[in-house]
Amino acid sequence: MNDVTSDTVIKGTAVVPGIAFADAVWIRPRPELPSAGPVVAEDQREEEHNRFLAAADAVAARLDERSSKAEGAAKEVLSATAGMVRDRGWRKAVKKNITSGHPADYAVVAATTKFISMFEAAGGVMAERVTDLRDIRDRTIAELRGEEEPGLPQVDGPVVLFADDLSPADTAALDTSLFVALVTELGGPTSHTAIIARQLNVPCIVAVGEKLKNISAGEKVLVDGSLGTITTGADPAQAEAMVAEYKEFAERVAQWRGPAQTKDGHRVQLLANVQDGNAARVAAATQAEGIGLFRTEMCFLSATTEPSVDEQANVYKKVLERFPESKVVVRSLDAGSDKPVAFATMADEMNPALGVRGLRVARANEPLLTRQLDAIAQAAQELGRDDNAPTWVMAPMVATTREARWFSELCKERGLTPGAMIEVPAAALMADKIMPYLEFVSIGTNDLTQYTMAADRMSPQLAYLTDPWQPAVLRLIKHTCDEGKRFDTAVGVCGEAAADPLLACVLTGLGVNSLSAASTAIAGVGAQLADVTLETCQKAAEAALDAEGAIAAREAVRAVIKG
Amino acid sequence: MNDVTSDTVIKGTAVVPGIAFADAVWIRPRPELPSAGPVVAEDQREEEHNRFLAAADAVAARLDERSSKAEGAAKEVLSATAGMVRDRGWRKAVKKNITSGHPADYAVVAATTKFISMFEAAGGVMAERVTDLRDIRDRTIAELRGEEEPGLPQVDGPVVLFADDLSPADTAALDTSLFVALVTELGGPTSHTAIIARQLNVPCIVAVGEKLKNISAGEKVLVDGSLGTITTGADPAQAEAMVAEYKEFAERVAQWRGPAQTKDGHRVQLLANVQDGNAARVAAATQAEGIGLFRTEMCFLSATTEPSVDEQANVYKKVLERFPESKVVVRSLDAGSDKPVAFATMADEMNPALGVRGLRVARANEPLLTRQLDAIAQAAQELGRDDNAPTWVMAPMVATTREARWFSELCKERGLTPGAMIEVPAAALMADKIMPYLEFVSIGTNDLTQYTMAADRMSPQLAYLTDPWQPAVLRLIKHTCDEGKRFDTAVGVCGEAAADPLLACVLTGLGVNSLSAASTAIAGVGAQLADVTLETCQKAAEAALDAEGAIAAREAVRAVIKG
Repeated sequence: MNDVTSDTVIKGTAVVPGIAFADAVWIRPRPELPSAGPVVAEDQREEEHNRFLAAADAVAARLDERSSKAEGAAKEVLSATAGMVRDRGWRKAVKKNITSGHPADYAVVAATTKFISMFEAAGGVMAERVTDLRDIRDRTIAELRGEEEPGLPQVDGPVVLFADDLSPADTAALDTSLFVALVTELGGPTSHTAIIARQLNVPCIVAVGEKLKNISAGEKVLVDGSLGTITTGADPAQAEAMVAEYKEFAERVAQWRGPAQTKDGHRVQLLANVQDGNAARVAAATQAEGIGLFRTEMCFLSATTEPSVDEQANVYKKVLERFPESKVVVRSLDAGSDKPVAFATMADEMNPALGVRGLRVARANEPLLTRQLDAIAQAAQELGRDDNAPTWVMAPMVATTREARWFSELCKERGLTPGAMIEVPAAALMADKIMPYLEFVSIGTNDLTQYTMAADRMSPQLAYLTDPWQPAVLRLIKHTCDEGKRFDTAVGVCGEAAADPLLACVLTGLGVNSLSAASTAIAGVGAQLADVTLETCQKAAEAALDAEGAIAAREAVRAVIKG
Repeated sequence: MNDVTSDTVIKGTAVVPGIAFADAVWIRPRPELPSAGPVVAEDQREEEHNRFLAAADAVAARLDERSSKAEGAAKEVLSATAGMVRDRGWRKAVKKNITSGHPADYAVVAATTKFISMFEAAGGVMAERVTDLRDIRDRTIAELRGEEEPGLPQVDGPVVLFADDLSPADTAALDTSLFVALVTELGGPTSHTAIIARQLNVPCIVAVGEKLKNISAGEKVLVDGSLGTITTGADPAQAEAMVAEYKEFAERVAQWRGPAQTKDGHRVQLLANVQDGNAARVAAATQAEGIGLFRTEMCFLSATTEPSVDEQANVYKKVLERFPESKVVVRSLDAGSDKPVAFATMADEMNPALGVRGLRVARANEPLLTRQLDAIAQAAQELGRDDNAPTWVMAPMVATTREARWFSELCKERGLTPGAMIEVPAAALMADKIMPYLEFVSIGTNDLTQYTMAADRMSPQLAYLTDPWQPAVLRLIKHTCDEGKRFDTAVGVCGEAAADPLLACVLTGLGVNSLSAASTAIAGVGAQLADVTLETCQKAAEAALDAEGAIAAREAVRAVIKG
């Protein structure tokens, strides 16, 4: 089955949406760092110091020159980096090392290492500057040796830039007509790379991990900055079409304003997925009509003991208060599997994704759940939330009617509106039995796909199976929507599927009432929905349901929607 | 949700079917084994040796007495154990130790340890005698010390006997009106415990593992020797009814002869699950009409490299030749997850049950699969098998249409009849797309339940979810049967569900054409089917599909069938 294996997908953290298709190039390697080396004769140390000063000045001047050509944040980043090369403290530390007999290159390494330790110890924003420090060190060493400056390679056509991590100086200087996408092994969504990539509006994926190294320089890669996917072996014609289409689409996205509806006025509620108050603040600045998924377990990943009800209420209020007049859907702790929470996780399971996770943790420890529900109720009450700003609560990993009933009773006792995630196939199949106990359900397509396809969503080998376009998964969603209509139960989708504009049309056609996605994806989904009628969505849904597989489903829907 | 957690189920290897409900008692502990101890004065050594001889004779006499009261295999086992206590080699080894100054009890330990090493090194049947050796050692030591003989406790009413392992002498002497079921931590299906339990026809489960220790003496336990389950916290009235019902049923089972059909003549093919030639021999002695599941991976668990096509063909012929005029369904390698095969398994997956297993292994290594198919075709051809003795081949873990088509083509190229396991929910949901490529499907209810419920089938905490009676799973089976009728594709079931007589009625009502189960379960299923009409099966199926959960489904079906 080689035709399938050739199309390999790896995933990272999606930072800036957009699609690019080009050769991968790796960033020019950093110089080999010197070890201590021979002692410099005393009478040559002053000359060695002058050599360092000249090199540092040359690096700073080059950064200044780039800064003068750049704009906005890029300008500032380049200028700040130049400033670091001129920093008196750093230069003094280097001088001290040279004066005590070290060669200039080693003196730079030793001085920088000292600063890195200090910055890392300080943590937070300071720690994020460590990349900058390494960068000025490497540039200075290359300059001292007369080597090519590390960083961006010379290219003569569009490429996707791969790097372990990008220095601010590299990203700031990027010509986005040449570097059409950025992909890094390390970094996070708040790193300098991410900040600049957003300003440049160049598709960007970070934190891909070591597997990025499996892709060689020169391989054609398809980068999807909305999904966080890097695909090798994609069909070129199809990939090029996707790029062109995205460009045209991006212009419409920039113009789009909510609330979301189809061209013919069918309303779909667009909501945001958040994990803390900060993400809620970002979401509030989008066109999101509320929060569709508040992942409470993400607030407690570093907690060693269970926070008190008051402490929890304060954490939840930070999210709720950002949407004082909108719906917020809070998910009870989804601890376990890939999200270990110290006070609520089973140790050492053979298959944690099929283990005691989500609501199952509470089954053996009901007070853990009731304390959380108490805290949510308290937070909502203290903020004076009411039917105009409803607070909904849903349980993860519901698999049986009994679990749904039990959770529902606990919520109702506290005046909370009960719902359940539909992410276990059984919950979708038993929707008719589960829904009478609930006010709403929210389909978690990531886990639902994982279980329906029996394929670990974290496995790069099985990414061809864990595609949210799998018709088998769409059939379970259809069944859930049909039952939702029958039982007058609201059906939302809060998985990755809701962030894919085309798939959002399918979900709308299937009868989903609300879509919840990362803040960055909301405008894209809204703009796409504005462009189609409900009937087109329904036809797209039919085409997807009848497709033989995920790829065929995507193609069939594209044909329906793009005409 | 305490009402649910109180009903806890643990599982072992089912050895002898039957249902019992009684207090658990643990076997009397073995004596503490002595360490070397002080040297016996030379003039007391003869006396020490006489003390040993007296103790050994007393133990032997007691075993002989029991033997005289027993019958059949029990008589022989007890007599053989007595013979071991009289064995000249063993007594000589003990004497030698005493003569060199060891106290009698330590002399017995040291001599026995030597024999155990020899027996274990010999392997096979000899190794299984190790339990007997430990037993005579412990009895003799207890006798030497004037302690109570280890083994069966004195009881005055029915109990379920729990033990780490049972010695043949213990099981042979069992009064089955008092010891109504046997459950052991260790042992295997061919151990002495198992052999005697079969002869006594007392419900028996072995190899439960350490988790058996979680059940305390005196707790009421419900033992189901067909399913291999030990349930604590069961409803007493319900449990008693199950026991009574089973007794009446067992009488009918003993009388039953195939081929299987309902009371009104609806035929259902009953087949056996096997893993090697030996199991096929056992299956051929039952009323099975063929093999419904030949687990080929079980033949290669100890192979370090892939056997050649000829070697494989010879292994497969050992199974095929036992059913020279019947259907045999061979499953291609289901390596991975809990069945590691050295030459075909992915190392170190986070969730092996959701990993690269089954057909997925062949996806990246097609020659591994085609060599196996070549070997199966060769075996069938060399045995002259034809349409009267069809050789069917099915792939495990099929999840997509593409996989089904690919496997089907490889089979057809070799003249083999292609099929697929339906054990990934997606395969059931996409049956209409998969079936056109296949001649038959076989539903693997164990894995299908695991994925549909998103619950590890090996997890004792989640046994309430991995119950094959889950209506969600039955709904997927119904859907598969409906599509099977539409596409004229045979639908079988080869998971644990097929071994449960009541559930077999439901499956028949859903439209399943064949049921494949362990050899021991076949007569029970046949006898139950003979007792109901197809219409009753269909009503039972409807009741199960409409139940809120697994327990309710079982109760509803019981009500339909038992009236």
